[in-house]
Amino acid sequence: MKKIMNKAEDFVDEMIEGILAANPGELATVADDLRCVVNKNKMAGKVGIATGGGSGHLPLFLGYVGDGMLDGCSVGGVFQSPSSVQMLEVTKAIDQGAGVLYIYGNYGGDILNFDMAAEMADVEGIRVEQVVAGEDVASGPKGEESKRRGVAGIFYVYKIAGAKAAELATLDEVKRVAAKAAANVRTMGVALSPCIVPEVGKPSFTLNEDEMEIGMGIHGEPGIRRGKLKPADGIVDEMLIPILDDLPYVRGDEVSVLINGLGATPKEELYIMYRWVGQVLAEKGIKVFKVYIGEFATSMEMAGASISLIKLDDELRDLLSKPAHTPFFEQKQL
Amino acid sequence: MKKIMNKAEDFVDEMIEGILAANPGELATVADDLRCVVNKNKMAGKVGIATGGGSGHLPLFLGYVGDGMLDGCSVGGVFQSPSSVQMLEVTKAIDQGAGVLYIYGNYGGDILNFDMAAEMADVEGIRVEQVVAGEDVASGPKGEESKRRGVAGIFYVYKIAGAKAAELATLDEVKRVAAKAAANVRTMGVALSPCIVPEVGKPSFTLNEDEMEIGMGIHGEPGIRRGKLKPADGIVDEMLIPILDDLPYVRGDEVSVLINGLGATPKEELYIMYRWVGQVLAEKGIKVFKVYIGEFATSMEMAGASISLIKLDDELRDLLSKPAHTPFFEQKQL
Repeated sequence: MKKIMNKAEDFVDEMIEGILAANPGELATVADDLRCVVNKNKMAGKVGIATGGGSGHLPLFLGYVGDGMLDGCSVGGVFQSPSSVQMLEVTKAIDQGAGVLYIYGNYGGDILNFDMAAEMADVEGIRVEQVVAGEDVASGPKGEESKRRGVAGIFYVYKIAGAKAAELATLDEVKRVAAKAAANVRTMGVALSPCIVPEVGKPSFTLNEDEMEIGMGIHGEPGIRRGKLKPADGIVDEMLIPILDDLPYVRGDEVSVLINGLGATPKEELYIMYRWVGQVLAEKGIKVFKVYIGEFATSMEMAGASISLIKLDDELRDLLSKPAHTPFFEQKQL
Repeated sequence: MKKIMNKAEDFVDEMIEGILAANPGELATVADDLRCVVNKNKMAGKVGIATGGGSGHLPLFLGYVGDGMLDGCSVGGVFQSPSSVQMLEVTKAIDQGAGVLYIYGNYGGDILNFDMAAEMADVEGIRVEQVVAGEDVASGPKGEESKRRGVAGIFYVYKIAGAKAAELATLDEVKRVAAKAAANVRTMGVALSPCIVPEVGKPSFTLNEDEMEIGMGIHGEPGIRRGKLKPADGIVDEMLIPILDDLPYVRGDEVSVLINGLGATPKEELYIMYRWVGQVLAEKGIKVFKVYIGEFATSMEMAGASISLIKLDDELRDLLSKPAHTPFFEQKQL
């Protein structure tokens, strides 16, 4: 297991210590708990936005805490949900009287804990609303969208909700745009190699040297097809077509595209993928507003990538265009 | 060879096509050559800054073409120098009468070609100056600094020179701050696994499952010590101490730190490294102004990392703080 780490049991805490040390003016912990992280920079009267989830996915989740994005994050162990108590502490720290929106991925443990945290917050007099992101079309067929896992596309939900909250919109309004963004995103992934959870010490799955798995989840959840590694354009087709068919898209639609590396895949390969994505979209008459390429939701050293598309209307485009500044994501006004 | 690509011989061109397609408003090619890339956004009267080098290192080199950084880049094959003719074409395209500064890494092929391009530019009446970045302390002992390879620390040279040029400084002034930045940067790397050049198809070197190599270059050049993989803090010590001893640093100095992933190493591990870097620097009384963590100079899917420190004075700190915007690097005013 070739990881640059000290003891496996310290992996998450030392990672957080590193993130805090690298960004002393931006992030702080609350409740004396390293795993309850908030933005130091508070905008008075703003709706708070909290997320949370397992570690091992940087920049997810913690990396999007910052101006124009999220206000707080509770951090779990690698691939494990944080606790409802940690979520509650973050909620209390970021509430400024306007309420708090939870945005997180569609995973059983996270749902259970965020539900419990919302109930506890209610007892404390804090109004909480929730938007659960689930956009991986490989994990639930059409008609069973509620089964879909949340993966890299949650970036769009954070970005759009964060921009709305920064306009001092009400909790209902922030929730509305977050839900609209979540409803308009679709993602498909491909895995080429596994990752190793530090405390487990062995690969989460195996793939032969000439194989790929389409639709695999960011924790190694089974995909929809395992087969021989194809050329890049063929891989893109297998990912993009199901996304386009699902919403569905029509000529004249406008999108933003996110090509996300899962950890070990070089940026060169992500751009080779985008080359074909752009050509297919152009052929179908779908206009591309803005392209994001890089690592937005990873699985540590897993090789592979995902493609996310969000269908934009005027409101979503406007909110996506707003500036944001976090330790892992920087955008000036588009 | 698990790469998301089409034909190996199209790897570089299709990558550039993807980068251009993803950034249509920002980058353009000149001389009808895909491998001659310039910033579309020209600032009148500014000194032009050009770089160039082999592919396979994104964001190096092309990724730093943008506002507040570089004006143009000639792109070579994977780990191969671009040609002097391509460099000349970029030079001609970015010269606005104030001259052009070449900033590139200390590699034989690049030096040869940039020297030739500078001579050809002179014939065309374009004044060219050069700063060669070489800051990898593993590749040349003290007293033999001219042997040192240019690696991730060139980011600082680009950033600082780019900020000075954006102030419409003269070519001599831009060259002076670039040379000062280059003289103040030191880097050390560690490799954990090799990469594969697409057209070669097999790993550039082998390392056993429990081994690391301290000081290996970004093309797999031999390092200074191969041994058992150590815990993160021990690896950091082996990299950081030679950097600190080389300049040398004294209590009260101020630095910026860059923790660079070589491609396959997860961000989590880079932050675990920074945790210890920050503690060692604090102990030595060295003040940290700004920390950059991520992928700044890679070797495709190589696992490993490098640490770069630049010693700052008021001028360098001020220039480093300026905003920049490129397809791969975004910074607001610090």
